[in-house]
Amino acid sequence: MRYVADVVATMDEDCRVHRPGALDVAEGRIAWVGAAADAPVTRGLGEERRVGGLLMPGLVNAHGHSPMTLLRGAGDGLPLERWLSEAIWPKEARLTPEDVWWGMQLGCSELLRAGVTSTCELYLHSGAVADAALAAGIRCVLTPGIFDLPGAGPQATWQRLLEEAAQLHADLDGRDGLLRVGLGPHAAYTLPPDGLAAVAKVARELDALVHVHVAETRAEGDAVRARHGCGVPELLERAGILDGRVLAAHAVWVADDELDLFARQDVAVAHCPQSNAKLGSGVARVPAMIDRGLRVGIGTDGPASNDNLDLWEELKLAPLLARAVACDASVLGAVEALRLATNGGAAALGLDCGSLAPGRVADFVRVELEDAAFVPAQSGEDILTLLVWAASSRLVTDVWVAGRHLVSGGVCRSVDEPRARREVATRARRLRES
Amino acid sequence: MRYVADVVATMDEDCRVHRPGALDVAEGRIAWVGAAADAPVTRGLGEERRVGGLLMPGLVNAHGHSPMTLLRGAGDGLPLERWLSEAIWPKEARLTPEDVWWGMQLGCSELLRAGVTSTCELYLHSGAVADAALAAGIRCVLTPGIFDLPGAGPQATWQRLLEEAAQLHADLDGRDGLLRVGLGPHAAYTLPPDGLAAVAKVARELDALVHVHVAETRAEGDAVRARHGCGVPELLERAGILDGRVLAAHAVWVADDELDLFARQDVAVAHCPQSNAKLGSGVARVPAMIDRGLRVGIGTDGPASNDNLDLWEELKLAPLLARAVACDASVLGAVEALRLATNGGAAALGLDCGSLAPGRVADFVRVELEDAAFVPAQSGEDILTLLVWAASSRLVTDVWVAGRHLVSGGVCRSVDEPRARREVATRARRLRES
Repeated sequence: MRYVADVVATMDEDCRVHRPGALDVAEGRIAWVGAAADAPVTRGLGEERRVGGLLMPGLVNAHGHSPMTLLRGAGDGLPLERWLSEAIWPKEARLTPEDVWWGMQLGCSELLRAGVTSTCELYLHSGAVADAALAAGIRCVLTPGIFDLPGAGPQATWQRLLEEAAQLHADLDGRDGLLRVGLGPHAAYTLPPDGLAAVAKVARELDALVHVHVAETRAEGDAVRARHGCGVPELLERAGILDGRVLAAHAVWVADDELDLFARQDVAVAHCPQSNAKLGSGVARVPAMIDRGLRVGIGTDGPASNDNLDLWEELKLAPLLARAVACDASVLGAVEALRLATNGGAAALGLDCGSLAPGRVADFVRVELEDAAFVPAQSGEDILTLLVWAASSRLVTDVWVAGRHLVSGGVCRSVDEPRARREVATRARRLRES
Repeated sequence: MRYVADVVATMDEDCRVHRPGALDVAEGRIAWVGAAADAPVTRGLGEERRVGGLLMPGLVNAHGHSPMTLLRGAGDGLPLERWLSEAIWPKEARLTPEDVWWGMQLGCSELLRAGVTSTCELYLHSGAVADAALAAGIRCVLTPGIFDLPGAGPQATWQRLLEEAAQLHADLDGRDGLLRVGLGPHAAYTLPPDGLAAVAKVARELDALVHVHVAETRAEGDAVRARHGCGVPELLERAGILDGRVLAAHAVWVADDELDLFARQDVAVAHCPQSNAKLGSGVARVPAMIDRGLRVGIGTDGPASNDNLDLWEELKLAPLLARAVACDASVLGAVEALRLATNGGAAALGLDCGSLAPGRVADFVRVELEDAAFVPAQSGEDILTLLVWAASSRLVTDVWVAGRHLVSGGVCRSVDEPRARREVATRARRLRES
């Protein structure tokens, strides 16, 4: 299939923009991309679709707990520690796999409608998360949560959850070409050192991504330092975690020497600007991370601390927060913000999406350009700038994952969203009342 | 006319929420509001419209330069001083009244679609701004810009612009019940002290709102201090400006004693979180302003520093920035943010909109509730919280100003937006090329 659009923003290394542009897709991958006038005569490509608007890579959500649609908005006004222990964990201990399946279905619909084609998920009942993601057709890096969940009984020990995660890796890694399975040790404060070491060992054996919350709040760092005599990054290093492929979520309170350690160990970071702001955690030092060459993506976090799954908001908020804190308008440009939300996230997760280039998977979205947000735009660079500063997810009309057309006319066709809304509403009522 | 909705969020002093609720409108004002079951039998009210969804007051934009749609996205990456002198002023000096009329038409359509029913505007060619606002049917506080515009020739001296503003006040104040006219002395650094004093005198004579940029950047304060030996607020006080009704836009770099001065003189503040972040100006101290009882509204600023006119983004960004900077999740709650964007702005501008209460003008919007953003919402308070954290302007379907139905189905009916987009695009090209 050939797609012809008014604008194709590749987000490749040179951020090339083709006006008009064409994108050839075959067997779920991009076969060719370039100016429409240069498109090759290709036999067997099938029909040509003139889609108008702008095509760009789908956004990559580098850190999510999307089934938390079930807990949307819970505990507003609480800092992270009290939010977890008072508003979140007691309810999560009562979740069933069916709850999580429906929560994830609603989350997938929200993600896809916002133009998010890949998401890295760390949650409970991970088999249900995987099933719901596969049913929705979204690309997913599943990192089953591993920690001792207070109140969840003997099933929810880190040992048991680590075993389950390894089994999910064996069963599901690579499924449908959409699912990768890693490990999700929750954090340095919810796992003992031997738990971290055990996760590190299994991760190395499986060559699996290790997705872990790191130094989200100042209090977390202080508590780890008081207990272990070192900061969170060093504790993870001692446990052997940093020897593997690591995705550090949040990483708000990380000092220069800790960022240097991340650079040496090629640790990737999932920046969660909105969650960190809403919970009063702080602002991560993204410019310092980029300066050190770290792979940085952007994450929504869960919809209980956001309270939606709209990564477009995050991709605008990241440079706004960075500039406000630095008091410097030259920090984190619009194109750089787009990179973080596309190929930055792909690199952080180890996925071959995030830019429109031959050989990459065909995960892309269409943005409506007939809107005041793009007036006036006089160059390809103008369009990229206005994508960040003036557009929003409301302009995403169509979404493809691996070439499959999942959203059209702004509606997710792979999820029964009205039913998912009803199910989540009903199940949330039970969680609150029980 | 009686409107019956699933939810009516009054944003009155007690933030009452009625489910279902009814709103009676007669002659452009609210006649009654309350629970649908309690609605009085009223003769002569005309038909009853079941609109479903949520009705709430229209948002109030406390600081805008909406015709700058013509310059959307200009000068990204520059700090305020260079942004003004390099990217903005040279182009503004070449604007015609027709340019500004079309720029304002497009701006009004954007504002109305986002649920903004009132806007405070400070710009050039203010007669054209007024005409375009009246044609669109938006409520507008027009504060004609008064300053020496570099490069704009002998017409653009502060003396001449002050005369014109006074004439506009005589001609247009109160027009159609929608337009109020004040004065817009641009800033302490673009007017000499005698200019500020002359504006203060005319404002007192007319009892007109004085809308002025105050301490937007640290550099502005430093420059004023170096030149006049005092900070911006004191300079304005010396000139007599603070004796009148004052709206201070931005007010980012304001010390405790200067906020105390504002409180004594009942100075209102227009907080512009996105513009201040994007231009690297900083983060205004909104919690400290609220603690002192200041009237605080939220503004979009112009679409060259934002780059849209979506006040929903601002009303979410205000608490995010406040919490991120304070590292405190309890700062600036969701309901407080809604207040700032509705009755806070109305109080700052001296308008009788901003809440749904008998006698207030009938400026209100309908928000679609059949969306994942409101799942799960189990109480009226949940709905208000999710309006801020999970919803966005994409859910605004209908907008009324003074009872006139201006937006339906998400489309602004009072502006020919496709034509306005073409006009702005063409005129912007001329501005860039000339």
